[in-house]
Amino acid sequence: MSSEGSPERRGRGRPRGSDSSDTRERIRRAAAKEFAAHGYENASIRSIARAANVDPALVPRYFEDKAALFTAALDVPVRPDRIVQLALAGPREQVGETIVRSLLEALERGPRDRIVGLIRTALGHEFAATILRQFILREVLGRVAAQLAVPDGELRATLAASQLVGLVVIRYGIRAEPLASASPDEVVRRIGPVVQHHLLGGDLSGGQGV
Amino acid sequence: MSSEGSPERRGRGRPRGSDSSDTRERIRRAAAKEFAAHGYENASIRSIARAANVDPALVPRYFEDKAALFTAALDVPVRPDRIVQLALAGPREQVGETIVRSLLEALERGPRDRIVGLIRTALGHEFAATILRQFILREVLGRVAAQLAVPDGELRATLAASQLVGLVVIRYGIRAEPLASASPDEVVRRIGPVVQHHLLGGDLSGGQGV
Repeated sequence: MSSEGSPERRGRGRPRGSDSSDTRERIRRAAAKEFAAHGYENASIRSIARAANVDPALVPRYFEDKAALFTAALDVPVRPDRIVQLALAGPREQVGETIVRSLLEALERGPRDRIVGLIRTALGHEFAATILRQFILREVLGRVAAQLAVPDGELRATLAASQLVGLVVIRYGIRAEPLASASPDEVVRRIGPVVQHHLLGGDLSGGQGV
Repeated sequence: MSSEGSPERRGRGRPRGSDSSDTRERIRRAAAKEFAAHGYENASIRSIARAANVDPALVPRYFEDKAALFTAALDVPVRPDRIVQLALAGPREQVGETIVRSLLEALERGPRDRIVGLIRTALGHEFAATILRQFILREVLGRVAAQLAVPDGELRATLAASQLVGLVVIRYGIRAEPLASASPDEVVRRIGPVVQHHLLGGDLSGGQGV
């Protein structure tokens, strides 16, 4: 979720008023250019700050980390790294359900066209695919794999991603019925166990999971 | 699989030689225009034949049915309706595995960029999404639902489609590792049971399926 602009973060040293939102927007735009020019891995907070004419030390007041800046630059309503991280912090047997529910909550209320547009762009432009891949590998899969603490954690994370991205494409992109109109609860009930299985095994093969 | 141009169909009254392939290509191009102008549902074989300057009675010699003409017009190496139909004709407990294996076989050897391009186009153009949706609903989901003979067969088919489309996007589109480089056997082993579960239940929830 790109909640970096929301009031609750002001307590953490966030400047107030329209100057603040101007600065934030300046940083965001500079970041979009920097990521486009150098990719996710090589983009530097320092260069972004310089381009935005802002002290690099101020950037964390507006964007917590590089992943936050990246998702803000993409202008999408979802932070996949955060959803997965939060889900993995909860009970292990609810990971799949929590991820699917969080994703749906973000997309049902937010501008989901942007997520669909992002997938579309990544499919059409090699460079966009590369940036997205670098972000997914480093910020999402890397964290998932570490947290799962299983040898094939990264493969499991890409498998889960395949189910989640496919859900977004069919439900919100192509909008094939009846999945497009199924209630969020129904979708969680159907997709949650699959994501759980991809990430942690069990059930599908009759085993206990990893 | 768009095997309509392959030699094995000649026994069924297929004309030979370059005239034949000219005619086929004329029909294919006329079909692409007709589908683009009227959508899948409303496109008519008769209008396509007229535009191609061909006797409508000749069209089935080149394209078995409307679905064959549509997939040929899209110029993709996969006929989803055929893959699903064939898989459902085999042993019920191998449906998921067979679908995933057939899809991978078609994509590993074929021009998979076209499938990725098709998904991309459907995500960016409402009309393309509508045509694809009409095709999927009628030729794929309708048949699956009928063959599964369960009340929620169409929902099950869209759920399976979400896993399969997501696999294509992550493995061939964005190419996120390690899924992008996983062996076809590994992918079948991981995704097959999920497609099986979406279509026929069982395993994931510990039940016997439908």
